[in-house]
Amino acid sequence: MREHYYQAHVFVCQNERPAGHERGCCNSKGATKLRNYMKVRAKELGLPQTRINTAGCLDRCELGPVMVVYPEGTWYRYETTEDIDQILNDHLIGGQVVERLKLTPDQ
Amino acid sequence: MREHYYQAHVFVCQNERPAGHERGCCNSKGATKLRNYMKVRAKELGLPQTRINTAGCLDRCELGPVMVVYPEGTWYRYETTEDIDQILNDHLIGGQVVERLKLTPDQ
Repeated sequence: MREHYYQAHVFVCQNERPAGHERGCCNSKGATKLRNYMKVRAKELGLPQTRINTAGCLDRCELGPVMVVYPEGTWYRYETTEDIDQILNDHLIGGQVVERLKLTPDQ
Repeated sequence: MREHYYQAHVFVCQNERPAGHERGCCNSKGATKLRNYMKVRAKELGLPQTRINTAGCLDRCELGPVMVVYPEGTWYRYETTEDIDQILNDHLIGGQVVERLKLTPDQ
């Protein structure tokens, strides 16, 4: 029996706040477009047991746009399609954390 | 430095499909009401480093309503407020998996 239902379960914050909110929100910083790109690319790459999921507010708004990869619990801030490609290739395929995008638990 | 940003990160599927869809969906089976209950109770209990999150389709529709608790990756099917209370008390507070509600990776 496999240990986890998804080997990589990615949650991409899609929360949307009113314009001008003091904490900002991931959605105002490109989260929807980049989540869509990630879903398409993950499908094209045929990653096994991998799910790219929409999530409500992950409550790290100031650092957004953010995502978290479970079960390892690695958080990333991403800005571009190149960032998404690197997370897919290095982390989800290669098993290597992308240090330049990683958020620590204390941030 | 703490290991994880959230000690318990719960994702509750809130996907909604058109009525009559062959796979069903969590939302048609009480997921919204019970997620709201879980969020309120978790706040009342003051659980540290715990987040109850909305998630898009977790793609285990036939088993729904479902949630997954990370970083351990424990999946549950729940139906009632009593189920939610037991997940909060036994798992999130007590650290014990609720076997009667647990889904295995092979289901």
